[in-house]
This record gives sequence, C-alpha cells and structure tokens, in this order.
Amino acid sequence: MKITKDLYQSNLVLLTDFYQLTMAYAYWKAGKGEQEAVFNLFFRKHPFQGGFSLAAGLDYVIDYCKNFRFSGTDLDYLAQMKNQDGSPVFAEEFLDYLKNLKFSCDIEAVEEGTVVFPNAPLIRVRGPLIQCQLLETPLLNIINFQTLIATKAARINVAANGAPVLEFGLRRAQGIDGALAASRAAYIGGCTSTSNVMAGKLFGIPVSGTHAHSWIMSFETELEAFEAYAEAFPEKCVFLVDTYDTIQGIKNAIKVGKILRDKGKEMVGIRIDSGDLAYFSIQARQMLDEAGFPEAKIVASNDLDEQIITSLKTQEAAIDVWGVGTKLVTAYDQPALGAVYKLSAIKDENGKWVPKVKVSQQSMKINIPGLHNVKRYYSKDKAVADMIYLEEEEINPRGVVIIDPIDPTRRKRLMPAFYSEEVLLKPIFKAGKLVYSIPSLEKIRERAAQQLESLDKTHKRLVNPHLYPVGLEENLHHLRMELVLKSQNFENEKNEQE
Amino acid sequence: MKITKDLYQSNLVLLTDFYQLTMAYAYWKAGKGEQEAVFNLFFRKHPFQGGFSLAAGLDYVIDYCKNFRFSGTDLDYLAQMKNQDGSPVFAEEFLDYLKNLKFSCDIEAVEEGTVVFPNAPLIRVRGPLIQCQLLETPLLNIINFQTLIATKAARINVAANGAPVLEFGLRRAQGIDGALAASRAAYIGGCTSTSNVMAGKLFGIPVSGTHAHSWIMSFETELEAFEAYAEAFPEKCVFLVDTYDTIQGIKNAIKVGKILRDKGKEMVGIRIDSGDLAYFSIQARQMLDEAGFPEAKIVASNDLDEQIITSLKTQEAAIDVWGVGTKLVTAYDQPALGAVYKLSAIKDENGKWVPKVKVSQQSMKINIPGLHNVKRYYSKDKAVADMIYLEEEEINPRGVVIIDPIDPTRRKRLMPAFYSEEVLLKPIFKAGKLVYSIPSLEKIRERAAQQLESLDKTHKRLVNPHLYPVGLEENLHHLRMELVLKSQNFENEKNEQE
Repeated sequence: MKITKDLYQSNLVLLTDFYQLTMAYAYWKAGKGEQEAVFNLFFRKHPFQGGFSLAAGLDYVIDYCKNFRFSGTDLDYLAQMKNQDGSPVFAEEFLDYLKNLKFSCDIEAVEEGTVVFPNAPLIRVRGPLIQCQLLETPLLNIINFQTLIATKAARINVAANGAPVLEFGLRRAQGIDGALAASRAAYIGGCTSTSNVMAGKLFGIPVSGTHAHSWIMSFETELEAFEAYAEAFPEKCVFLVDTYDTIQGIKNAIKVGKILRDKGKEMVGIRIDSGDLAYFSIQARQMLDEAGFPEAKIVASNDLDEQIITSLKTQEAAIDVWGVGTKLVTAYDQPALGAVYKLSAIKDENGKWVPKVKVSQQSMKINIPGLHNVKRYYSKDKAVADMIYLEEEEINPRGVVIIDPIDPTRRKRLMPAFYSEEVLLKPIFKAGKLVYSIPSLEKIRERAAQQLESLDKTHKRLVNPHLYPVGLEENLHHLRMELVLKSQNFENEKNEQE
Repeated sequence: MKITKDLYQSNLVLLTDFYQLTMAYAYWKAGKGEQEAVFNLFFRKHPFQGGFSLAAGLDYVIDYCKNFRFSGTDLDYLAQMKNQDGSPVFAEEFLDYLKNLKFSCDIEAVEEGTVVFPNAPLIRVRGPLIQCQLLETPLLNIINFQTLIATKAARINVAANGAPVLEFGLRRAQGIDGALAASRAAYIGGCTSTSNVMAGKLFGIPVSGTHAHSWIMSFETELEAFEAYAEAFPEKCVFLVDTYDTIQGIKNAIKVGKILRDKGKEMVGIRIDSGDLAYFSIQARQMLDEAGFPEAKIVASNDLDEQIITSLKTQEAAIDVWGVGTKLVTAYDQPALGAVYKLSAIKDENGKWVPKVKVSQQSMKINIPGLHNVKRYYSKDKAVADMIYLEEEEINPRGVVIIDPIDPTRRKRLMPAFYSEEVLLKPIFKAGKLVYSIPSLEKIRERAAQQLESLDKTHKRLVNPHLYPVGLEENLHHLRMELVLKSQNFENEKNEQE
C-alpha cells in the first residue's frame, strides 16, 4: 500500500516539528549533521491500563521513508522564512544540503501485528544525526496512533470473544487519515470489516453497512422502508429496527423477512442502535426464534467499547455481531499513546559508539542506552518473557537474568536453551535501501491473531492484567546503572564548580 | 486552500460509510434518488462540559463538495463488489448513474470561527436524497473534528488569558490529517503558532520551535549544546533547560545569554518541559531577573490543558508562553464531538415540503423539523440570544418568544426591533455552484476572536458556565410538538392494528 502515492502528495517530509529543522540546521552548522546516532522509539506504559499492546503503522513508516526528500516547493517554503531582522532563517547552503539529502538510515523494527510491551524498542533508527532527527516526529505520529488503535481493537475483540466486530467510526474519527489509519489498525486488531469505503478501496478491508434511520424516515412507514430495502438488497437485509418503536420495528422486520423467504431469500438479521441493548436484544431473539428466524443475527451498536460489551455479555444479551465506532477509532478513554523517540548512542570522532541515557527524576523516564534489541522466548507456542539486550553481548544459552527496567528487585532467571526465540527488531532499511518484504494486510492481521494467541490469557485480561515479564539482560542493566550514576556525579561536579 | 489538491488525491467521494452507498442504490431502485430532501448537521451538547463551541471545518467541506465525483477507479472498486452468490452488489446502470452524478445541492452553513450552540444547525444540505445521503459521513467527519479542536483551543486560550499558546501536538495526533486539521483548527481557536511545518506550508500558519533534549544529549555538555545553538540561531534562542538538572540548565542558559548579549543579541528565553512547572518557573524568573534578563520569556510545556494552565496561573507560576500538544490536538478529555446529520424535511410527489422528526424516548434526541435557520441577536456587540426559526414564517419585530428545545418551560421574550441581528446560516452552494467567497485563515481567526469577544464571559467560564439562551421560535416549537404527538399517535394506531 502506498499511502503517500494513493492518498497524499508524493512526500511528507515537512510533516515534522519545526524544531527538527532548526536542530538539523544547527547540527549542520556545528559540523555534526553526519555524525552517526541511534534513536529508539518505545512507549512507557500500555494504554487503557492493559497488559499488552499491538504494534501497527510500520507500512506507513516504510512509505514515508521511501519518499523522504525535499521537493522544490518544500525548499521554497523554507527559503522564505525570515528572522525578525529580515535575514533568512536558513542559509542557502543548508537548503542545498537538504535538496541533495538522500535517505540513508538503517531501520530495524518490530513487525506489524506483534504484541509489544513497555520500554522495548518498536523501531530503531541508525544514521546521520540530521536524518534521525527529522524522522522523529512523523514516526511518532504514525506509530503512536496506529498502535493505539490496533490495541484498542484487540481489546474489543477480546471482549467480543470471537463474535464479529464491525468498525464504523468514520463520522467521529479525528480527521480524514484519523479515520483511514484507524480502519486499517482496527482490522489488524481483529475487526472483521469497516464502514469506510475508501479504506476498503485503499487497503482491501471488507466493507459493510446497510441503512440508517434516514432511510426509514424518507418513507411513509417503516414497513414500506423495509420492503423497499429488501427489494434492492434481497441478499443483504439487516433491518434497523429502532427508528420509531423497537418492538414494532422487530415485528416489521419479521414481516418483511417472511416476504423475502417466500421469494427464496433469507434476511440476514436486524440491528438495534439505541435503548437498552440487553433488554431489546433478548426480546428480539425470542421474537425472531418464535417467528421461525433462529438464524437471523442481532447486530448491536451505540457507543460500545470493551467494557460495555463485557457488561452486555454478563447480562446474557442476545447479540451476535458488535458494531463499534467512536470509542474504537478515537481510543476514547485514552486518545493518545505516549511513545517517545530517544537518543541511545552516538559515535564519537574515533568511530566509537558512546551509549547515552537521559536521566530524569523519575526512574520510569530513564531510557535504555546502547544498540539494543529484543528477544522473545517461547515455550511451545506461548510467549514466556522478553529480554532487551545489547547486540554486541553474547547471550549465555545456559542461563540469563533479566531485570525489570523500573524496579530492579524484579528479576527472572531464564535458560534460553529451553526455549525457542524470536528476535523482534527485524531489518527494514539498510543504508536507506528497503530490505524487508512487506507483508499484505491480511498477513499482518493473521500475525496479530497468532501473537495474541501466544499470550497467556491472564495478560489479556481487560482489568488488572497479569504483568508479562520484560527485562534488561544483566550487562545492559549494569551499563544503564553505571551511566545513570556517572551522569549524576557529572552533574554534581559541575554544580561544585559554580 | 485546496486540501484535496494539495494533500489528498483529487476526490474523496468514497470517504463515506458503505451504508450511504447501499441506501443510494436502494433509493435509486425505489425511484426516490432525486427526491428533494433537507438534512441538518448539528450537535446536542457542548464538548468539555463547556458553555460554547467554535465552528470550524467549512473550508474542507467546500473543497470536498467541489471535488464530489466518482472517478474511474472508484467505480471499478464498486463494480467488483459481489454478493455471496457471486452477483454484483450494484447494478451497472446504477454505476452509470454515479458516473454521471454532478453535485447539485444547496448548502447553507455557519461561517468558520462562529460561536455555536447545541441543536442549531451548523450546515444545512438541500438536494436530491442520494447526494444528501452520500455527504453525511464526510461532512460529519470534517466538522466534528475541527469544531472539537477549535473549541478546545479557544478554551485553552481563555485559560491563558492573552498569553501566547503554541500548538505542538503532531507527534501524538491521530494520524496525518488528525495533526494537520488540528493545527488549522487550533489556529482558528486562537493559538499563535504550530510546530507542524507542513501545516505551516499548507495553511500559512506561523511555525515555531527550537530544540529538543536530544540536541543537548548529542553534545558532551549542556553548555556546549547551548553555545552551538546560539551560534546557529542567535536571533531565536529559547534554551530547553531541563535535560539534566533544571536549575543548572537555567544557569547555563544565563551564561550563554550573556555571551549572546556581548555579540549584540538577546536570548528570547528558556523552556521548561518537566518537573514542577510552578516551582521551576518562579525560580527561573528570579534567576533571570537577577542576572539582568527581565525580558527573557519562560515557556512551559508538558501535558498542559486549560485546567492545568488555570491551576498554574492560580499558583502564580511565572510562565509567559504556553506550549500545548497532546491534550489539545486529540481533545484528550473528550476526543469526539457527537454531531449528527438528520433529515428534517422531504418533498412529496406534489412538490410540497413535509417536515420530519425522528422521535426518541429521550426528548433531547428529537430533531428540529422543517427548513429552519438561526438568527443571533446582538445588543451593541454582545450576543444576547439565538433563535431557531422556520424560514417561511415571518418574525414579528415587536416581540417573539423563544422556547428551549429540551425544556419547554424555559422561555424568553425578545423584541427583535431592539437588537441588531445576524442570520447564521449563509449560502455556500446554490444548485451545486459555489456562491460563497471563502475567507482567508487569518480572517477566520479574526472572526473567531470577535465572536468570542461578543460572548459574555460567564458563558466562557471553563467550569459550570452560564447557559447562553438558544430557543425555537414559537411556530417552530408548535410544529415540532405537533409532529411528535402525531408520530406517537401514529405508532399507537399501528400497534392497535396488530
């Protein structure tokens, strides 16, 4: 899928924070623009107080990077920017540098549809400082949103427990791509279809939908409206029964269902979009069964999310298909994932990598230094733990200790030899060249389903989930502690010099 | 601004719910496709428990309508859709109909930057049923989101009370357009700049930004990093002081500020992005003043919104400029506005308009019937009340009574002759032709500022605002009541027939 080609203009290089450009300019001025650096994109906390997240958005990132270049109009725009004294903000030589800039980074990333956890990198970018910096904002924008929505969709599908979940959030989504990217991520997370026809066309997601209240209201009576709809779509009749009076609507649906049956067709079902969904679905089930329509499906919608679906299930609501919109596509109860993008190493003049940490008063906010990767250990098909490790270090197959990045008293001993393993960061670009074979959206969706299956169900509990173990390999833990202490001493020394 | 031309492919006609297309097909089959109808777009409740909303998004709507046509690939996509028995979902003749479809609606709308209230239409669409129906979803998507963000921005600016508010939400926004449209709406709502360079290029919004923690970390010491930045941007130095130790950071900023001054330049200020913003800003102000930098600005950021800004102001935090991101561009505490789009009248075979209501158990959800418009009455420059009225009815300048649409015991008597008035729905398209002169974004922003000024400050209170009076003109109120009662009788009769 070529989002920039199909949907946007051919490059989105200016879809970044202005400070990335001012820093780029200042790096260039300081002669540091080509200095090699490593940045990691990760989040610190699962959204929705959950126990897992589902990575999504890499396909957009790949497309963004492939089209990374400054067009003539981009450069014109930058060239006309002026300081207060009328001088240009950016020197002409720098704009020439941007004009000739070619994407040349290495990118490793977790594949879309992978279950992911806090602190472990989703994307690692290695390359010239200026390029790494310019990529920060678009990568965060794309990954934050799609990972958030894929995770929300997965949670809703956990609640639906195998029943189809239709996504129809377009009308309340946050902008045009806020809808399109959400439909894509929701499909990855397990939804069966979208209402958004453009998402269907662009991404190949199945589309679904029947009619609205306005259809009913445009006829004299509800019955006429159902009949006219059955005339147009004898194969696809899901009657919306709550325009005037839900019980009467169910009766009318049954009447038209019988007419259809006389013509050798079967109505698919009914939809209830308001009122007490538990009460009306149970009524509807009984009425449909008694009228000889035990196969007719009951679709429910109206501000649903994983909590309400769970509650309706507990009440034994007779709902076969769930329609979700606003709460899914905006991730209503937490509309942003707070992923960040942090420098973890920089090459000095001697070509030696210097690991970096940003120290903070909150230990939760201290990043993980160095060139690290993540290994997931599996016992049979079940994921047992993730280990974040320095790529240069050898892993002892006889035993490793992984240490929680926040609470160092939480440790776990592992015998790697006992498990199968998967390295989660996969090569995507090497020196700016795509080396990854992009899976289809269907494959990504399958991977998501397998990944969710590999997770013990206690980690998927919607409330108070069991924490999945993710830890730093010992050497990495020690490096990090050492750098933190050193940084603090360094600060103390500086303070004393005052 | 041509959003589809500059940013998206040339048409977005498929950016709609699939049920709009199935209904279109069924209308066409039932011979009702060209039947004339009127739909109104309105919301039922202010977001954020506020007392006002700020309309935005019309420019996108205009662009959408101007480019409303089915392209060859759109039609190909619809043509390949199959029923389970392998038959095509849409008949070829219908696809031909879509191919030849030309946008021919009348559209009236409230101008962008207008203060708006529940139940009154923001947009009125009059035209053939099929077109009205297809427009529903994209219009809702666009208006819901931009109105939501413009309103949030206005609230944040009310809290900032004249101090500049910089928007930098790109990295956490919901998708690409979720960022771009948010930057646009935030600017309308009073923000002074965006960090999003592409929003700057596309919309002409001023962009701002300096440097990030990674800039500091890429140098050996913070001092070196400040010096190098001052070298590149002597005119634009806002030093981020909290990478390692905030107090030390302020000291380093002052050092480099002095170096700049020796060169005849002045540092603009410092930015604090973490920790206790009240404490550190007060410390910073004192240190800067004592060091001879009373003009240096203090910029604060870190998950700010109108509530936190208000709280910091109460604590006398010494903050001159507010940087807001996530909470603004995602409207974090209420990430969707629930605007709806309802049929209010349809022309019968005799060419007579039949007003329509959708009755609901909740009186709040009953729409307003007929071809109605909104008048705002002003006393001098202050808005005193909005009246929703039937266009065909004459208004008595000597006195009208307006009746609250939810609670009919709340009424207000008005003497229109005493006030100046503004009809809020303005003609935008006539028979598909644009008749509106689109204002620049700067003009829209000015209108928003004037509109907010026209509102008594009690309506702008962030918590428990005073309700601004909006009511139905008496005749419209009676029509609505009559239709509701008739509809209920009608239902009773039908039930008795069972």
